[in-house]
Amino acid sequence: MASIKPISGFPEWSPEQKLVEEKFLSKIGRVFQLNGFSPIETPAVERVGTLTAKGGNEKEIYKITRLHASGESSDDNDLALHFDLTVPMARYIAQRERELVFPFKRYQMQTVWRGERPQAGRFRQFYQCDIDIIGRESLPIVCDAEITAIMANILRSLAIGDFQIRVNNRKILQGFLSGVGIDQSLHFAVMGCVDKLEKIGREGVLTGIREALGDTNFDASSLLDFLSREIPLERVADLRSLSTNTLYQEGIDELAEVVTAALAKGVNANELTVDLSIARGLDYYTGTVFETRLVKYPELGSVCSGGRYENLVGTFANGNYPGVGMSIGLTRLLSQLFKHKIVAARAQSYTKFFIVPVSHEGAVLSYAERFASKLRLLNVPCEMSLVQGKLAKHIEYAERKGVAQIVLIGTDEVTNGTVRVKDLTTREQWDVSIMDEGFFTSH
Amino acid sequence: MASIKPISGFPEWSPEQKLVEEKFLSKIGRVFQLNGFSPIETPAVERVGTLTAKGGNEKEIYKITRLHASGESSDDNDLALHFDLTVPMARYIAQRERELVFPFKRYQMQTVWRGERPQAGRFRQFYQCDIDIIGRESLPIVCDAEITAIMANILRSLAIGDFQIRVNNRKILQGFLSGVGIDQSLHFAVMGCVDKLEKIGREGVLTGIREALGDTNFDASSLLDFLSREIPLERVADLRSLSTNTLYQEGIDELAEVVTAALAKGVNANELTVDLSIARGLDYYTGTVFETRLVKYPELGSVCSGGRYENLVGTFANGNYPGVGMSIGLTRLLSQLFKHKIVAARAQSYTKFFIVPVSHEGAVLSYAERFASKLRLLNVPCEMSLVQGKLAKHIEYAERKGVAQIVLIGTDEVTNGTVRVKDLTTREQWDVSIMDEGFFTSH
Repeated sequence: MASIKPISGFPEWSPEQKLVEEKFLSKIGRVFQLNGFSPIETPAVERVGTLTAKGGNEKEIYKITRLHASGESSDDNDLALHFDLTVPMARYIAQRERELVFPFKRYQMQTVWRGERPQAGRFRQFYQCDIDIIGRESLPIVCDAEITAIMANILRSLAIGDFQIRVNNRKILQGFLSGVGIDQSLHFAVMGCVDKLEKIGREGVLTGIREALGDTNFDASSLLDFLSREIPLERVADLRSLSTNTLYQEGIDELAEVVTAALAKGVNANELTVDLSIARGLDYYTGTVFETRLVKYPELGSVCSGGRYENLVGTFANGNYPGVGMSIGLTRLLSQLFKHKIVAARAQSYTKFFIVPVSHEGAVLSYAERFASKLRLLNVPCEMSLVQGKLAKHIEYAERKGVAQIVLIGTDEVTNGTVRVKDLTTREQWDVSIMDEGFFTSH
Repeated sequence: MASIKPISGFPEWSPEQKLVEEKFLSKIGRVFQLNGFSPIETPAVERVGTLTAKGGNEKEIYKITRLHASGESSDDNDLALHFDLTVPMARYIAQRERELVFPFKRYQMQTVWRGERPQAGRFRQFYQCDIDIIGRESLPIVCDAEITAIMANILRSLAIGDFQIRVNNRKILQGFLSGVGIDQSLHFAVMGCVDKLEKIGREGVLTGIREALGDTNFDASSLLDFLSREIPLERVADLRSLSTNTLYQEGIDELAEVVTAALAKGVNANELTVDLSIARGLDYYTGTVFETRLVKYPELGSVCSGGRYENLVGTFANGNYPGVGMSIGLTRLLSQLFKHKIVAARAQSYTKFFIVPVSHEGAVLSYAERFASKLRLLNVPCEMSLVQGKLAKHIEYAERKGVAQIVLIGTDEVTNGTVRVKDLTTREQWDVSIMDEGFFTSH
């Protein structure tokens, strides 16, 4: 018999868990739709040359080949699974530049594949939910605030507890370092150290910076003091006077604008923090960066991150296409939410009522079917029993599937124009008239 | 610059088309949910041995390998993309047999991959929307009717015109052939010929049957007359007397039961036809088979098909797991609907209102943002302009994106507690009070 052992790194949820994932995908997608983003989907497969055009980790790429090579179609030899949605988006925009409207706001919710070494918490296939706003030639800073507001809306709608969006602008640290005479070639190294503040602590970061800069009298300690300051949202602009460097001041101005516009767009003050120490790993960010923590579960790390970058589309098209975006690694997030029991996966279906016609005789059955049709017409999921048998069997089926209430229908119910509802938790039961509109619309 | 040429066979929709696909996926999924089916998703990847366990077309399988083999993880050498959702489902059920509730009703909407030779209308990646009901040891015939009713509900909710579900039972022809002494080994060949009736015509089928049966005095012509008969839905049981073969009579009984139960479950009489000539290509069907045509577009072929089969799960587990299911090849269907202009793809987003604050001054902006928030809270998609500029530019953006109405907000509107709505089709404009709940709830 063929092996049914799970394949490491390729997650597969139970029906209960998949139902939660589906609800999350639907809630996240709805926020994107409510804000006017355009849906796109790119094939799982791109040319190898497309995926590697921007550098990227070639070691993680899965190539696809025919199990039995036939030589029929030559382009079969150059195809690989995408490892993120950003490179395919850039290719998509370059290809359709004339039919799209700019700023182009797109969302994309798909699986991506990475040939990682299998280890706990590492997935080789996972969902990403991404949005980006891409401008042509220019892109106002208010777009960064729109992304921030959408992050807040998503996290509220997922109802996974209080969260805090931390926002920063990379120009601040880069400009500050330039201002004190540190060469641009060293900025990324310093930024990389600072970004590890929470992970390795103050002393570790100080050592790292000193190693990165070599023999210099740069005061890394004061820098860290500055970057660790608590900055009230309304005082960001005050930081402008701390350096005369233009890039620094541009960073402060942009950060202040993002904060103000995000609050105007409905982000609550307690959901937003300025944190000058965050940088995000990816080299391609050039301005605003954000990450998001769950207040009660900081150990989960950032659940939703992003930032502004210059011209990713430029790899595939002439012209300048600045962008800002964010990404939710849904598979990783869900696996953590399940593990920490922040979200429960209880039901194997959406069913609200499991309907049991006590007899399968004509009138009872057609009454039960009409009752079920009415529920569905009113958007209430319900399920007709398929197997005839004892009530105890039906109750077991409903309970195992996670349905809370069953509906019993016999000849008395048909005569009286009622159904009997039985709650499987309380074991209470009561009759409801099928003319009682309130019953149908309350579910 | 990296190539952006499309890859043959891997479809990629425009935002307008993807929006339609998303709506279709959502409508189809909702019907599955309303009927108590459990969502499952299996990884894109299975072991090669899993995919080939049941036979299948190995030539169509795409293997995945690391672009740069590292030898780190040995199971990387045995992985391939699934070519359908049925084999993965069978493996999934075998693996989780203890945690699932039977009859297990599942839906699965995912992309599958086939290494086909690229040609018009052939996709190498496409969406399938599948449901199946799997029993343990037995499965009542009413399940076949439930699948039929769901097909009808889906096609109604997609609103792509009148449709007709053709239903048959393979046992009828098989039993009939046995009854007249034709060996079982020849049944599939005859069935294959009959299934081509619409494609190659009566004469072609007769020649085919004669070739398949060789030298025999079997009256293929009478058989075709019988299979082509129009059979009123309420007269199926009458056919029972035409053969004394038990398999034949079982087929008639099952078909009559499916028809009666489907009608009871709300399928309309004009949506359902008994057609004894359909067989469906796949060898694994053993009883009920159905296919569905759009009445106005028969040239599209079957848009939704399925049937009953014995024990697919048996490849991966001991025991007997009869099933019945159906599948919609969504990518192929949509490509045809777009091609024949049966469905229009018009809007690049869900946006109902494109909101333009005439000035980006504090009070106007915050009024506009509050108005947008209120719309979104009431589930109305809207979009705030991100770029400042002339009205003509905003109108162009909205029109190109397919938004029908824009909302203009200036200082007068803030003072009066109104917004100005402008319809881009009629060019009419009117003022609406932001206290007018009717305005918000009518969208």
